[in-house]
Amino acid sequence: MTDLKEKAAALRAFNEAREWGQFHNPRNLAMALSVEAAELLELFLWCEDAGPQPALPERRRKVDDEAADVLICLLNLCERAGVDLEAAFWKKLQKNEAKYPVERARGSMRKHDE
Amino acid sequence: MTDLKEKAAALRAFNEAREWGQFHNPRNLAMALSVEAAELLELFLWCEDAGPQPALPERRRKVDDEAADVLICLLNLCERAGVDLEAAFWKKLQKNEAKYPVERARGSMRKHDE
Amino acid sequence: MTDLKEKAAALRAFNEAREWGQFHNPRNLAMALSVEAAELLELFLWCEDAGPQPALPERRRKVDDEAADVLICLLNLCERAGVDLEAAFWKKLQKNEAKYPVERARGSMRKHDE
Amino acid sequence: MTDLKEKAAALRAFNEAREWGQFHNPRNLAMALSVEAAELLELFLWCEDAGPQPALPERRRKVDDEAADVLICLLNLCERAGVDLEAAFWKKLQKNEAKYPVERARGSMRKHDE
Repeated sequence: MTDLKEKAAALRAFNEAREWGQFHNPRNLAMALSVEAAELLELFLWCEDAGPQPALPERRRKVDDEAADVLICLLNLCERAGVDLEAAFWKKLQKNEAKYPVERARGSMRKHDE
Repeated sequence: MTDLKEKAAALRAFNEAREWGQFHNPRNLAMALSVEAAELLELFLWCEDAGPQPALPERRRKVDDEAADVLICLLNLCERAGVDLEAAFWKKLQKNEAKYPVERARGSMRKHDE
Repeated sequence: MTDLKEKAAALRAFNEAREWGQFHNPRNLAMALSVEAAELLELFLWCEDAGPQPALPERRRKVDDEAADVLICLLNLCERAGVDLEAAFWKKLQKNEAKYPVERARGSMRKHDE
Repeated sequence: MTDLKEKAAALRAFNEAREWGQFHNPRNLAMALSVEAAELLELFLWCEDAGPQPALPERRRKVDDEAADVLICLLNLCERAGVDLEAAFWKKLQKNEAKYPVERARGSMRKHDE
């Protein structure tokens, strides 16, 4: 198991070898992240109604690949936007624990919405 | 530093305490991920033309929060879709190294597109 | 009832009065369109599991507003990207009729996906 | 030139012939709309930095097709969600005229963001 910093370092080396830093401003990477998230969403688009397509082996592999693409774009964005994703994750989880107290949030997503 | 499995375990405890598993099917979580990615994108929407708004302190904090939300949704999705994100990340990075050989990919994003 | 050209003209006047043309390059507008589409998606995010929230009057009004925002962004994008949306719509519908012949497409979304 | 109701009627006939109504609940169509908006966004993803790719003829055709797909998804969604898109468009434009008074909004996108 490796942590986020090790993954970010591997991506940094990948991008530097290809001189992709010139393309990787935070704005471009935020666009790329939305595009990858939508490619993942597309894998679940009609499946509830048209059968459990993600259960098909080739579909399962696509879910793995698209989930990885989302993480890659997110780490690239954090690298260029100066986001400490490790710290941001734990801080946001603490915020959510305060925002959704167990007693009030149990069994309801309403506060997610309104 | 903690790895993805530790973060996934913290989210699992958070969700179980609130009985949110009933809402967290992969399809809903893929939708939530796209919504969070768009909230992050929105922070960069007009900034190139209307000034460096993400440089504003409150905007910077929003980028941290939205990036964390994307990771939270992604980890929740992987948990429910049976994706080993750690393995998927390294496998996809290997695929990308083969897909974008340094000599051909250097300084060009074309193969990202076509 | 007005057609798309009349709506585009009304938006052009709205934007010119505010000197927003400087912000409205196709790329920014494609970003804005994705953000608006996600705001519409968010209205349906947890509703299947957490009750028919879009049936609530205030939720219904939000669906109207977000659907209108998507059309506004799309028309602004077509204006700046030189897309004749009227022609593109009918051309794409013809393409879809050829791509999804009634006999093979009836009752199946598979070709939407694979 | 045809108006939105004529386009909606053509789509209704297209969908009924294929018995796609069973798949076209508002939630699925909101997902499809986000996916199509992201496919349009992808056409502009690296173009500012990697050259004016949308200027390439084949890229221009893709922009036409993806813009049409967004309109098709939006009209399908409005059909199933009971949205009068014609009325919603003009009502939202009036709201925006009140929200962004010319004197205050001229030359600034700030109120789009904050």
